[in-house]
Amino acid sequence: MLRGVFPPLPTPFTDDELDTGLLRDTVTALMRTRLAGVLACGTNGESFLLDPEEIDQVVRTTRDAVPDGRAVLAGTGCDSTRATIAACRRAADSGATHALVRPPVSYTRFMTQDVLLAHYGRVADTSPIPVVLYNQPAVFGADLAAPTVAGLARHENIVGLKDSSGNIAHVSDVLARVPDDFSVVTGVAGMMYAALLSGTSGSVVAIANVVPTLAVQLYEFVITGQLHHALALQRAIAPLARAVTITHGVAGMKAAMALAGFPASSPRLPLEPVGPQVVDELRSMLRHLEAFTGRALIGTAGQDGPVSGEAGD
Amino acid sequence: MLRGVFPPLPTPFTDDELDTGLLRDTVTALMRTRLAGVLACGTNGESFLLDPEEIDQVVRTTRDAVPDGRAVLAGTGCDSTRATIAACRRAADSGATHALVRPPVSYTRFMTQDVLLAHYGRVADTSPIPVVLYNQPAVFGADLAAPTVAGLARHENIVGLKDSSGNIAHVSDVLARVPDDFSVVTGVAGMMYAALLSGTSGSVVAIANVVPTLAVQLYEFVITGQLHHALALQRAIAPLARAVTITHGVAGMKAAMALAGFPASSPRLPLEPVGPQVVDELRSMLRHLEAFTGRALIGTAGQDGPVSGEAGD
Amino acid sequence: MLRGVFPPLPTPFTDDELDTGLLRDTVTALMRTRLAGVLACGTNGESFLLDPEEIDQVVRTTRDAVPDGRAVLAGTGCDSTRATIAACRRAADSGATHALVRPPVSYTRFMTQDVLLAHYGRVADTSPIPVVLYNQPAVFGADLAAPTVAGLARHENIVGLKDSSGNIAHVSDVLARVPDDFSVVTGVAGMMYAALLSGTSGSVVAIANVVPTLAVQLYEFVITGQLHHALALQRAIAPLARAVTITHGVAGMKAAMALAGFPASSPRLPLEPVGPQVVDELRSMLRHLEAFTGRALIGTAGQDGPVSGEAGD
Amino acid sequence: MLRGVFPPLPTPFTDDELDTGLLRDTVTALMRTRLAGVLACGTNGESFLLDPEEIDQVVRTTRDAVPDGRAVLAGTGCDSTRATIAACRRAADSGATHALVRPPVSYTRFMTQDVLLAHYGRVADTSPIPVVLYNQPAVFGADLAAPTVAGLARHENIVGLKDSSGNIAHVSDVLARVPDDFSVVTGVAGMMYAALLSGTSGSVVAIANVVPTLAVQLYEFVITGQLHHALALQRAIAPLARAVTITHGVAGMKAAMALAGFPASSPRLPLEPVGPQVVDELRSMLRHLEAFTGRALIGTAGQDGPVSGEAGD
Repeated sequence: MLRGVFPPLPTPFTDDELDTGLLRDTVTALMRTRLAGVLACGTNGESFLLDPEEIDQVVRTTRDAVPDGRAVLAGTGCDSTRATIAACRRAADSGATHALVRPPVSYTRFMTQDVLLAHYGRVADTSPIPVVLYNQPAVFGADLAAPTVAGLARHENIVGLKDSSGNIAHVSDVLARVPDDFSVVTGVAGMMYAALLSGTSGSVVAIANVVPTLAVQLYEFVITGQLHHALALQRAIAPLARAVTITHGVAGMKAAMALAGFPASSPRLPLEPVGPQVVDELRSMLRHLEAFTGRALIGTAGQDGPVSGEAGD
Repeated sequence: MLRGVFPPLPTPFTDDELDTGLLRDTVTALMRTRLAGVLACGTNGESFLLDPEEIDQVVRTTRDAVPDGRAVLAGTGCDSTRATIAACRRAADSGATHALVRPPVSYTRFMTQDVLLAHYGRVADTSPIPVVLYNQPAVFGADLAAPTVAGLARHENIVGLKDSSGNIAHVSDVLARVPDDFSVVTGVAGMMYAALLSGTSGSVVAIANVVPTLAVQLYEFVITGQLHHALALQRAIAPLARAVTITHGVAGMKAAMALAGFPASSPRLPLEPVGPQVVDELRSMLRHLEAFTGRALIGTAGQDGPVSGEAGD
Repeated sequence: MLRGVFPPLPTPFTDDELDTGLLRDTVTALMRTRLAGVLACGTNGESFLLDPEEIDQVVRTTRDAVPDGRAVLAGTGCDSTRATIAACRRAADSGATHALVRPPVSYTRFMTQDVLLAHYGRVADTSPIPVVLYNQPAVFGADLAAPTVAGLARHENIVGLKDSSGNIAHVSDVLARVPDDFSVVTGVAGMMYAALLSGTSGSVVAIANVVPTLAVQLYEFVITGQLHHALALQRAIAPLARAVTITHGVAGMKAAMALAGFPASSPRLPLEPVGPQVVDELRSMLRHLEAFTGRALIGTAGQDGPVSGEAGD
Repeated sequence: MLRGVFPPLPTPFTDDELDTGLLRDTVTALMRTRLAGVLACGTNGESFLLDPEEIDQVVRTTRDAVPDGRAVLAGTGCDSTRATIAACRRAADSGATHALVRPPVSYTRFMTQDVLLAHYGRVADTSPIPVVLYNQPAVFGADLAAPTVAGLARHENIVGLKDSSGNIAHVSDVLARVPDDFSVVTGVAGMMYAALLSGTSGSVVAIANVVPTLAVQLYEFVITGQLHHALALQRAIAPLARAVTITHGVAGMKAAMALAGFPASSPRLPLEPVGPQVVDELRSMLRHLEAFTGRALIGTAGQDGPVSGEAGD
């Protein structure tokens, strides 16, 4: 089972080239927290901007920096079935524990539920590592309907779903249809609290790259039934969570990570870094979170100690 | 405060003409349950298909059939500010307790947050009854952003929001910004459980017209902290809830109400009633819910007794 | 047949109330040109912001100001079949020659081609004046597919289509399916030239309210085979045409009309007038057109004489 | 200048593997007509489903089969600037004459006009062969606005635009802003007639793979001023043109090519071939076109002789 909080790792670049040294340092710093593992080469990892060889390097570097016993998910979805199968094999060879497979993003009008069932079935039949489905229709075009997820959940090599639809009714519908040992994790930080209470087992959220201890704390508050604290923390992290995804995307996430003390890096072209105004806005959000939690977040790279019990009261 | 479950009443027609007798009987039957009030002339009430004079009749008939102490919300949103103000006055004259004001649905490209702020401000300045905002961007086009809701919540005559965006992160964001005495109710049955746990105070959901006691039970399970029962019931009602909204719309809701024992009525043209196959599908969903809850739902018009404590176990 | 150029009349307001005097003056001025008739109460006439009684006044005032022999189309589409039928009767009583019937804009998911066929059939069966269909899916939600238009074109009381889809392949497809005496007019000024060459018989375009003689000239250039002049004029008017529709909407159209010498009026609330910067931008576009055509357009109210044969060379 | 009609070549697969033999035979057959050149590795060439090495093979095979003097465009757009630059170099090495560069399809919310200007500028600065822009917002997400195209048209290594927006007003707007030696070709067969009359110089349309002589004939009718014949032929080919793009996509195009006598091939997984019913529908459309033109089209592989002058009368 995928349980807990997983950061969708950024991919660092120096002069527009992959920088595995910065990646290793980033992963090492993140892994000092209670994060349950990582996702390498997800959308936040600029996977669409990476060559297959670079993806191998990223997965290998990540694998080496993650302690044993924690999951290393690798994004392996491509547009053809053939390329997706190849990517799963390469990810397995590079040490990934799970293949996170987004649907094809081209020819989306023809990505019917039947076509998606066949595609994922063929991928799962041959992948050396367990497959995790990925649903985010606003970004990928194709939509994994709840009955499709339920059908695929019967495949012994399909073990979970990352759902970033943002639609809690849909997530709840999926959970009602899949077995208990099928992991559903969500990808929208603003719904972590509601999703965990609805039966998901974890989250893959960009904010876990920036304030990993707070993302873990929110998860643990819900798991231990401290709902009042959980709801307060959920509301408190939401503005920063939106800023590093919806509003400013990968560039915003990388800028916030630099502020938080992780290695700094620009996105790859054609993506551009955010300007100084956005950096100021992000710093102000981090300061607000510092005030709310009573803890140092800026420049600490996640070494910020436990949130006090009074948080949010 | 708007607390509890409110059915968005159907508007009955006989030979395509408004039938206030059937409406009175429907409301009377619904009010035998613990529903907290009603919404007249909402989208599910086919408000877009009613003349202003018919709307007056619907609100008056509804008002007469609702016991004192329960809220009678009336949909009063029109496309011009002038017509919306007039509709609020007429609703107040007809006995409504609150005006539910959808945004203009035309010229939506020009419905900026500033224009919406000004529009709602003018309406609230003159409405004799408190105004409840209404957000459902997928249907109305205009989108009430969270800061806009927060700004309008400062107006003393704007007391709440019905949010049917289906986006729990957005609902949570709104709740983080409004005062405690500002009521946020949601309009998507599949997220009742998650929304109530996130701080909303109630729901206006089509399924409350069909199985009012179950909708109330779900609300009460959450309010009393019986989360396990609540989640099980939430999942159980979801398929029927989708069928009477997303899949089959008002026609599906009216067919399900007829099966449940409420007065039967067709939608107004150009809307068409559902066919016999859909009726069979709805009956089968009701039977499934009867099996789950151990209670009679078909033909009972809401007189189906308390759900047993074992439900969902 | 609807042949030529028709302005979609603005509806003037003074202090947010309908001003029929300004309307009469506007129509009278426009009718001094070779415009083929008018459309009252279209989308550009803020029809969504008018009460039924106001619509009657607008149609009557317009009818009185339009010379005999020119068409007076009136927008009569409502969301219910019943209200649409009533609106057609009222428009006929007020002197309209044709009813322009937009599809229902609510419950659009249920506006299947079958439902639209039945709706328009019922309306045409009872309308005392000929019906013109109206297609603009981006605004109305419902989409009149080409086979649906072809089916409705067989009804003896359905005589034409206004298509504002902007999709020339779709317009061409419709023309291939309808009889020669079925009028297809388009509503996008930027495609007048291409549409007329593809077989349409005219246009209903906002720019005909601002520079009526140029819109008529473009039509006549195409009709008389002066394609080089037509294309040059088409390109020249496009920026202003976009500004008074897509970019600034009704408010922009009203501001441009005021600059062009027609009676000035604000849009009705919640629509707001454009600011001084937009007025400057519109004035500069009119000046550019004056330079291109060698004619006075600002302040002339359409009395700007014939475009010289050298235009565009 | 890109003048005339260019087929967006299919990429043949045998057992899901690239089959360059079938590709060579297909190109050779197509080049027996007056097509002006070809596009290799466009969307219709399933470029999203090909590896970089396969793309090299496709371009080389195509180059070898196209007579000197005709253009060989190659699709080289990738999501990162870096990969796009590399793809342009490889295409040049493989013998392409032009690089057709689609915009990035990921992170589309951040593909502002400024980012697109910078991206295309960097690509054009380094591409060994001239760059052709590609606009199709419904498929690619990013939208190349007319001022952006005009700005990029000033770059000496950007020589044209393929526009598949389907929006003739937009195409006309672009043409009004670019120099005369900048080629604008369209990608929607249903608007060939209107676009050519509006100033475009050619088309890249899927139907040119199926009935190349008719696509060329339509082009030549317009160029030689036979507008009546052109319009009749435009309307006649539209149903088949829609079937092999919008309705059935690449699978439909490949099935229609097989019927027309070109080498048969399935699309690559996850795309599925069309079923027998669609094949029947396509055959019937081809028969209808045979009746209209008085020429054999089924099984002729483009060797169907000149369309008689009576066509469409």
